[in-house]
Amino acid sequence: MTTPHTFRRRHKIHFSECDPAGIVFYPQYFVLFNDLIESWIDSLLPDGYHGVIGARRLGMPTVHLEADFKAISRFGDRVWLELEVLRVGGKSLTLAWRCSGPDGEVRMAATQTIVMTSLDTHLAIQVPDDLRAAIEHGTARTEDGALTESGHRIGAHSAPGGRPVRETV
Amino acid sequence: MTTPHTFRRRHKIHFSECDPAGIVFYPQYFVLFNDLIESWIDSLLPDGYHGVIGARRLGMPTVHLEADFKAISRFGDRVWLELEVLRVGGKSLTLAWRCSGPDGEVRMAATQTIVMTSLDTHLAIQVPDDLRAAIEHGTARTEDGALTESGHRIGAHSAPGGRPVRETV
Amino acid sequence: MTTPHTFRRRHKIHFSECDPAGIVFYPQYFVLFNDLIESWIDSLLPDGYHGVIGARRLGMPTVHLEADFKAISRFGDRVWLELEVLRVGGKSLTLAWRCSGPDGEVRMAATQTIVMTSLDTHLAIQVPDDLRAAIEHGTARTEDGALTESGHRIGAHSAPGGRPVRETV
Amino acid sequence: MTTPHTFRRRHKIHFSECDPAGIVFYPQYFVLFNDLIESWIDSLLPDGYHGVIGARRLGMPTVHLEADFKAISRFGDRVWLELEVLRVGGKSLTLAWRCSGPDGEVRMAATQTIVMTSLDTHLAIQVPDDLRAAIEHGTARTEDGALTESGHRIGAHSAPGGRPVRETV
Repeated sequence: MTTPHTFRRRHKIHFSECDPAGIVFYPQYFVLFNDLIESWIDSLLPDGYHGVIGARRLGMPTVHLEADFKAISRFGDRVWLELEVLRVGGKSLTLAWRCSGPDGEVRMAATQTIVMTSLDTHLAIQVPDDLRAAIEHGTARTEDGALTESGHRIGAHSAPGGRPVRETV
Repeated sequence: MTTPHTFRRRHKIHFSECDPAGIVFYPQYFVLFNDLIESWIDSLLPDGYHGVIGARRLGMPTVHLEADFKAISRFGDRVWLELEVLRVGGKSLTLAWRCSGPDGEVRMAATQTIVMTSLDTHLAIQVPDDLRAAIEHGTARTEDGALTESGHRIGAHSAPGGRPVRETV
Repeated sequence: MTTPHTFRRRHKIHFSECDPAGIVFYPQYFVLFNDLIESWIDSLLPDGYHGVIGARRLGMPTVHLEADFKAISRFGDRVWLELEVLRVGGKSLTLAWRCSGPDGEVRMAATQTIVMTSLDTHLAIQVPDDLRAAIEHGTARTEDGALTESGHRIGAHSAPGGRPVRETV
Repeated sequence: MTTPHTFRRRHKIHFSECDPAGIVFYPQYFVLFNDLIESWIDSLLPDGYHGVIGARRLGMPTVHLEADFKAISRFGDRVWLELEVLRVGGKSLTLAWRCSGPDGEVRMAATQTIVMTSLDTHLAIQVPDDLRAAIEHGTARTEDGALTESGHRIGAHSAPGGRPVRETV
C-alpha cells in the first residue's frame, strides 16, 4: 500500500556534519534522517518516538537501505530533508528520503525498510495499530497536541517538486 | 568586558544523541553547543559562520573548556540550550553555556574559551571588527537578513531564569 | 574486474557506538567502515589516505550504497569488519563490506561505490595509477613501510567464511 | 589517593574525526577518551565495561570535566591517548587524560570526574570493590584473560614523558 504521506523540514548544513573536504560526511545523512523520522513519529503519535522506544519497548531497526548520492552538500548550505511512506507492511515500513538543494535538485535519495521489533526479544512484531492508522489516514498532531487531518494540512505549501507537504517546525 | 548577550533555542533530545543508558552521551552536548554557536554567529554576521570559516579562512578552535553535568537529560526530554558571552578579548571569546530542563533546572553548564585563528597558519589573530561590534552592540540579523538592535529583541521572552533572551527559530 | 583483495580487522563494539536499545546505532556502521577503508588505503599507499585527501587533493565520495542489516550487534560484542574489492573502474571503486559475529554469522553486509574526485572541482577523475596497481596486484605495505606481495600475506588466516585474508594491526 | 596507574594506546587520527578545517573536531576527543576508558575498564575487570553497564546495571556518568587544547591534531597524525587515575573516591573516580604527538608534545589534556551510579535510580553508589581493588593494585587482565600484576607490566615501555606505562593492543 502506497500512501501520499510526506514529511519534511529545512536544514542548514552544520560544521559538525562536514568532513575535511568541507562537505557532508555521508554517515551524517543517516543521522539527519533518523532525527527526521523521530520528528515524524512525534507528529503521528501522542507519546512520540520516545514513548514507542521507551514505555512501549518497541524498536524500529533498519533492515535494508539503498542510497544514491547525486550531488554534494557543503557546510552552510540550506537544504530540505524529506521523507515519504512507500509501504506499510504487517511488520515493516518502507520509507523514501530525499535531501534537496534550494533549487529543488535532489542531492541524496534513499529507500529504507524498517522492521518493528520488541526491544525485549529483538524479534519482529506487528506495526502498532495506532501508528498504522496515523500513517494511513495521514493524521498528525501539532506540537501542542491538537489533532489535524490530512485534508487540513498544517503549513502546507509547495515542496521543491511541487507537491503539497506537511512541514515541521 | 562582559556583555548581556544571550542566545538560545529549544531542543528535544534525539535518539541519536543518547547512549545505552538512555541518556545524552555527554560528548553530544559539545556537538549541540557547537551547532548553537554556529546559529549564533549566523545571527550576528551576514556571511554567517560558514562565511567566517569558508571565505574568510578563520578558525574558532576551543582552547579551554570546563563543564559540570548536574542532572541527566533523557531521550525525548525538551530542553533549552543557551549561550551567553562572558568576555570578548583581543583574540578570544569566552562563552557560558547552559542546558536547562523545562522547569528551569540547569542540567549542564560550561564555560568555553575560543581563540580566533587563521586557518592558513593556525595562529591566533584579532577578533574581526564586525564580529566584535555585533557582539558588543548585541546586533543580530534575522533569518531574512533584516538588522535588529539589542533594544528591539526578536522573540524576546522569559528564559528559565527570568531574563529576557533572544530566541532562535 | 573482480579482485580477491580482502582486508579486515577485529572490533569490539563501543558504548559510544550504541543507541538506547543497547545495539549499534546503524549510522555508526558507516563510520566504522569509513575508518576501515582509510586503514586499507593506508596499507596500499605510502602516503596513505590522508596523503590522498591532503597533498593530492583527491576525494573519495560515496555515490551508491546498499546495506542489509541481518542481525544486531550489541555493546561489547567482538566482531569482524571486512572489506573486499568487487570492481575497479576507470573513475570508481566498488567495495563489499561485511560485519560478522565471532561465529562467522554475517550481521551486516553492504556494497558501496566510491568515485574518485578532485577536491578542487568535485568532478570525477581517473583512479590514480598507484592505487589501481596496489589494488590489482594486492600489494600492501606494513605499518613500518615494508612492501609485501599478495602471495606473502601478513597475518593471513581463516576468515569467518574460510577464505584467507589480510588482517590489520 | 593517587595511584600510578596509567593506560594508553596509539591512535591515527581518522578522516571521520576531523572537521572542515582538517583538524580533530574537538567533541571527538571526548569520544576517543570514552572509548579509551572502556578499554581500560575491560583490562581491569573480567566482565569488562559492557558487563558493568549491562549485567551490573551501573552507570559511569561524567560530572565534571576540564580540558585544555594546546595544539591541533590533523587528519592522519599519529598520537598517543593516555589516561591516569588521579583519585579513587568513595563514589567517584578522577582521571587525567592526555593526547600527545609523536614528539611527546601534549596537544590536549583534561581531568574528568566520573560518578558511579545505579542505572535504575541514576543515584550515586559506591565504586565496586573489584574495580577499586583492580585500580589500586594496578591489576589488569590481558586480552586472553590472564592476570597480570603491576610489577609485571605487559608491553611496558617509555611513554612520551618517560614513565613506564601499560599499553593496549
